[in-house]
Amino acid sequence: MAMPPRIVPHSNAPLRVAIAGLGTVGAGTVRLLQDHADLITARCGRPVEITAVCARDRTRDRGCDLSGIAWFDDPVAMAREGGADVVVEVIGGTSGAARDTVEAALASGCSVVTANKALLAVHGLDLARAAEQAGAHLAYEAAVAGGIPIIKALREGLAGNRVRRIYGILNGTCNYILTTMQETGRGFDDVLGEAQRLGYAEADPSFDVDGVDAAHKLAILTSLAFGRPVDFPAVSIEGIRRVDAMDIAFADALGYRIKLLGVAEDTEHGVLQRVHPCLVPKGGSIASVDGVYNAVVMEGDHAGRSMLEGRGAGAGPTASAVVADIMDLTCGRTAPAFGVSVDDLRQGPSAPIETHVGAYYVRLMVVDRPGVFADIATALRDAQVSMESILQRGHDPGETVPVVMTLHKTVEAAAIRALTHISRIEAVVEPPCLIRIEDV
Amino acid sequence: MAMPPRIVPHSNAPLRVAIAGLGTVGAGTVRLLQDHADLITARCGRPVEITAVCARDRTRDRGCDLSGIAWFDDPVAMAREGGADVVVEVIGGTSGAARDTVEAALASGCSVVTANKALLAVHGLDLARAAEQAGAHLAYEAAVAGGIPIIKALREGLAGNRVRRIYGILNGTCNYILTTMQETGRGFDDVLGEAQRLGYAEADPSFDVDGVDAAHKLAILTSLAFGRPVDFPAVSIEGIRRVDAMDIAFADALGYRIKLLGVAEDTEHGVLQRVHPCLVPKGGSIASVDGVYNAVVMEGDHAGRSMLEGRGAGAGPTASAVVADIMDLTCGRTAPAFGVSVDDLRQGPSAPIETHVGAYYVRLMVVDRPGVFADIATALRDAQVSMESILQRGHDPGETVPVVMTLHKTVEAAAIRALTHISRIEAVVEPPCLIRIEDV
Repeated sequence: MAMPPRIVPHSNAPLRVAIAGLGTVGAGTVRLLQDHADLITARCGRPVEITAVCARDRTRDRGCDLSGIAWFDDPVAMAREGGADVVVEVIGGTSGAARDTVEAALASGCSVVTANKALLAVHGLDLARAAEQAGAHLAYEAAVAGGIPIIKALREGLAGNRVRRIYGILNGTCNYILTTMQETGRGFDDVLGEAQRLGYAEADPSFDVDGVDAAHKLAILTSLAFGRPVDFPAVSIEGIRRVDAMDIAFADALGYRIKLLGVAEDTEHGVLQRVHPCLVPKGGSIASVDGVYNAVVMEGDHAGRSMLEGRGAGAGPTASAVVADIMDLTCGRTAPAFGVSVDDLRQGPSAPIETHVGAYYVRLMVVDRPGVFADIATALRDAQVSMESILQRGHDPGETVPVVMTLHKTVEAAAIRALTHISRIEAVVEPPCLIRIEDV
Repeated sequence: MAMPPRIVPHSNAPLRVAIAGLGTVGAGTVRLLQDHADLITARCGRPVEITAVCARDRTRDRGCDLSGIAWFDDPVAMAREGGADVVVEVIGGTSGAARDTVEAALASGCSVVTANKALLAVHGLDLARAAEQAGAHLAYEAAVAGGIPIIKALREGLAGNRVRRIYGILNGTCNYILTTMQETGRGFDDVLGEAQRLGYAEADPSFDVDGVDAAHKLAILTSLAFGRPVDFPAVSIEGIRRVDAMDIAFADALGYRIKLLGVAEDTEHGVLQRVHPCLVPKGGSIASVDGVYNAVVMEGDHAGRSMLEGRGAGAGPTASAVVADIMDLTCGRTAPAFGVSVDDLRQGPSAPIETHVGAYYVRLMVVDRPGVFADIATALRDAQVSMESILQRGHDPGETVPVVMTLHKTVEAAAIRALTHISRIEAVVEPPCLIRIEDV
């Protein structure tokens, strides 16, 4: 039996917000709520008031006025006893304080606004159920591409559509690195180092560059788009560490850019979720999304293709998304966390990456000698894979040179089989590099 | 005193919808509601039921099942007596049946979903007030760029931001024509004729190609973005009839595409609303929006730049937007029509186009003879306008040749003054062609 909603709609009383975590996003949220208090009151018909905050260090200057706001050292205590209507969780992490805070808030009937994609990707279903049981709401616009209202667009704006495919550039760090590699011709390690110095990449960049962060976001989008429980373990993940400057240059010559995409699509084998570098055509919309920008494309059966592009991270965009969620709750604009109630989410089959059907870019490092092309062509024929083009730049007998092929659309298992044969050719001296060409 | 809301939130009873108009969009809406009835019920927690429809011709096959649905010949009678919770107005036009139907529905406490941009641009404020007084809602996602949830993004998704500027490609017909001119090098009249044959342009294309349709949409976006009453007469409007194939080619050589943009921005002289052809840099996001696609860019003070791109028209995208509005109403996700209540809309000053500050592309048709460049340079100097580049392709003494200049950022009044001087030079044989270069 659901409890009555804690936030009374059409009330004039201030909505009380407690903020757990005062890092970049938390402090940005405090500043936005304070700077635009008049605007927010006019748009909501009632004020939004920060009644409590929680962080470890009381003394740090965060560029916002915390006077008159109750301070808690323990976010769980704040969630339980802070007297808030809405708890904002911007602590981060899949366990510990973040999870405990969200669970405590929901258990006490408080709605939760969170920017925590990892938490939702791993525990989203349980948290959505807890919210429903408590008659509370779980909102997370800030968890995926902060500056883009993608959660709202998918859950409400395109609610009348069945989604066929959803894909996007979901990690600004990777997109910055790939864009810079493209523009300068420099290598991955070099550009990563620069991104770290500029603050676009973490000291430990693995969550970003290995594709885990994008996969967290993709798992959330997949749940919303296809009405399924969040299934992070089903995401096939490949990061950008192995993208070589050479591949970016070859892709350019072939008319493509390389982007890290997260893609979820409804296939005959089930829903396939995959995060990996992709070749995308230069002239298209997704190729022109550069630097730290994110973009998500939704393909609805009635609306057609819709793309949303904007900043994915940073204090401003993320706080903007947090505040939008708070304002929605204030106005009674709510929806089940994943679009339908937890009991209506349907766990259909998940397709493995081997069932993916697409075109491929393949780079081989080959000793330049007569007969190699024939060996490669034979290996492809034996695997029943059809080549679209092959390219060897330069001619340097006896030396190792790159040979680049594109393969026509084929099932991935066949492409892998062909590459296994090819890698056994004596003149092929490195494991082949395979990058999927995405049909966008 | 507001009436109690007619749509009872958290009820399980079907929401009753009456549809006024069964053209492309009306019939598309019926089909979508019927095809996706299960999906819609799951997402709304209750069914949406079409209880009445109204159109002139009862006999036409519209590709949807109308059995069991009450038929009205008079949409106003349907709005008054159809027993609906929500009336969908897809008749079109700023007066007559469309306006009467919307007013009758609101007066009887029915909420209204409309795709009618012209009606909103001209009577939006009055209709919003009528809705508020009746305790009803006025929703119009379908009125601006159907396949893009731009109204929702602006009103809710970026509700915590002050918007600095909003601009976009708001008319698919113009974008199709300009894209085709770009791709083929053909002239305006030729491409327009083809667009008419393909059904992308109306028999009387003036609403589209003269910029009126884009201006209607811009007036609506401006109201929402800046919290002002809709002010369609304040929009400066210039269409695409005078864009020459030559200008598209010169723009290309200079690194630009030509797009018809609607732009609204907050300036020191007030809010400036303008619709006109623009040069936009080739590499940017807006330049890659081609064919019948629309796109809108919002610049929020916290979220930064966000762009939404999608199909602007057609049965599917528009019906998708109508159904999204119906589903929002069904779920109680509502907002004042223009983001704040009518009494909170603030009529600040409107800036005239002469106050616009920007860079310009200018094409002159000039008799090729010594001294002309000096005369042009003198005229610019006298108007205190600074030239960035000048280009004359070919050299043909005594013949008329195009000369293309770009001007550095300047106030429009000064640019016009300079062009007035230049047009008096004897060797300048046609009125100068001026196209604004937009800073996107």
